Amino acid sequence: MKLTILGCHSGTPLVNANPSAQVLDIQNRLFLIDCGEGTQLQLRKNKIKFARIKHIFISHLHGDHFFGLPGLISTFRLLGRNTELHIYGPKGIKEAVLLLLKLGNSYTNFPLLFHELEHTTPALIFEDEKITVTTIPLNHRIYTNGFLFKEKEGERILNIEAARKHEIETCYFQNIKKGMDVTNKKGVVIKNESVSFPPHHPKSYAYCSDTEFYPEIVSQIKNSTVLYHESTFLEAHKHLCKKTKHSTARQAAQIASQAQVETLILGHFSTRYGDVKQFEKEAQEVFKNVLLAKEGKEFIF
Amino acid sequence: MKLTILGCHSGTPLVNANPSAQVLDIQNRLFLIDCGEGTQLQLRKNKIKFARIKHIFISHLHGDHFFGLPGLISTFRLLGRNTELHIYGPKGIKEAVLLLLKLGNSYTNFPLLFHELEHTTPALIFEDEKITVTTIPLNHRIYTNGFLFKEKEGERILNIEAARKHEIETCYFQNIKKGMDVTNKKGVVIKNESVSFPPHHPKSYAYCSDTEFYPEIVSQIKNSTVLYHESTFLEAHKHLCKKTKHSTARQAAQIASQAQVETLILGHFSTRYGDVKQFEKEAQEVFKNVLLAKEGKEFIF
Repeated sequence: MKLTILGCHSGTPLVNANPSAQVLDIQNRLFLIDCGEGTQLQLRKNKIKFARIKHIFISHLHGDHFFGLPGLISTFRLLGRNTELHIYGPKGIKEAVLLLLKLGNSYTNFPLLFHELEHTTPALIFEDEKITVTTIPLNHRIYTNGFLFKEKEGERILNIEAARKHEIETCYFQNIKKGMDVTNKKGVVIKNESVSFPPHHPKSYAYCSDTEFYPEIVSQIKNSTVLYHESTFLEAHKHLCKKTKHSTARQAAQIASQAQVETLILGHFSTRYGDVKQFEKEAQEVFKNVLLAKEGKEFIF
Repeated sequence: MKLTILGCHSGTPLVNANPSAQVLDIQNRLFLIDCGEGTQLQLRKNKIKFARIKHIFISHLHGDHFFGLPGLISTFRLLGRNTELHIYGPKGIKEAVLLLLKLGNSYTNFPLLFHELEHTTPALIFEDEKITVTTIPLNHRIYTNGFLFKEKEGERILNIEAARKHEIETCYFQNIKKGMDVTNKKGVVIKNESVSFPPHHPKSYAYCSDTEFYPEIVSQIKNSTVLYHESTFLEAHKHLCKKTKHSTARQAAQIASQAQVETLILGHFSTRYGDVKQFEKEAQEVFKNVLLAKEGKEFIF
């Protein structure tokens, strides 16, 4: 599971402070999460192949999370894309994107499929044989979802020594991985548990931005491998959180702690802060395993 | 008259190849012309004060000329702007911008005034005591205007020596500058021409992008101080001009030559060309005084 940060700042873009966008590479699928202005340039800078992006998830329709989307779609069109592109985002996103394409007489030649979201409880919005994606309803100024990316539980792991000891023929090994009991050469039924180990623990990634402090999400993101939680402000500016519906670094850490995630990544920093080191320090008073997002940074879990 | 190039490339943004945007500083007024994705960052890089921008002119609604506008407006809002912003562009621009602001629940606190254009002949769209701006109807795949920025003819210049010789009192000097005849101390009427010089020649700037080769514009832009004309392609790729409705460097030079402008600036280069020096060479075979646009470059006339 690899996460590449394309932008992790709030509000207005500055040089080296890009608005929200990131790419999650999980089980060889590439998901683009949020798409602030300039995302297509950030994708190029980070050498991410445009053709690999088939699913884009937009948390909410504030400009710093979505004004890069029309340009990215236009670029896909200019590059001659012909494969499907799926866009998941709040209701209204389809009207907005299609209006812009219509005004430019630039409808895409490739299938552009919108999945508009209105759920106010967690909803499964993507599933294939290896991955699920579920919305995480957040509490922001406008309708906003985080997204929980989860590997499905994989196959059980064959205990080859035990299988041989039980004289099981190799043609049954596949069934063992699938969790089935099998019959050995002597016609004896061998319990699956005695010839296999449990599957690897599935990894999960919870993206939570933008939101005010919102412990309602804790049960859903419990034990996630990684939580990316917005921390627009430090506690020194906590008074700004109420009106803007954002969180502090400390509040993000409280969510991480309550949800007992393995790792917390902080991002969506207000550009008022020159140095974000203080965010790490503040969060670590509550939750130890804290990392800071940074444009161009890759995290591997 | 100062022109700052923020972006002068066509199609998809690349590092160091920004889509169309430029700032014209004329008679102490600042006009933003086109606003491709990333324009707000280019404004910052070029240290142009956001508050000085009161009028934005959008040639057409292809993404590389206008996808930076919603983000720029949002940034103006976040910065607490309270002065009027006037936007001139093709019909549909208002609906698009307002829909994006509505979806983000981010209507501006400052007056946002749209001047939607549908004229197919040159139309005066801006006028104050020093400047006029007129549309230049172009020939592109969608409805497109260039813009002709023109200084008004200034006051006549007082010939102070002649005025003294004719014994004219200083309280009449203002009338002389306004072109009036005046009466001297002896009660004799003195003709304006004998105590003043003609005003400075007014400067003008014609922005023509995007368009195919379109000599219909020549009469309107005749004798302009500066013509910025798109040259997406070189003659080697002239066959692409017909379908895309763009021009070559040579064609841009032909327009400049026919219009007898003083200086031609080439821009809107396709990103297929690594080195744009060839554009200058090609154009100079037809018209001598050619300059090449470049991100961050300032031209003073």
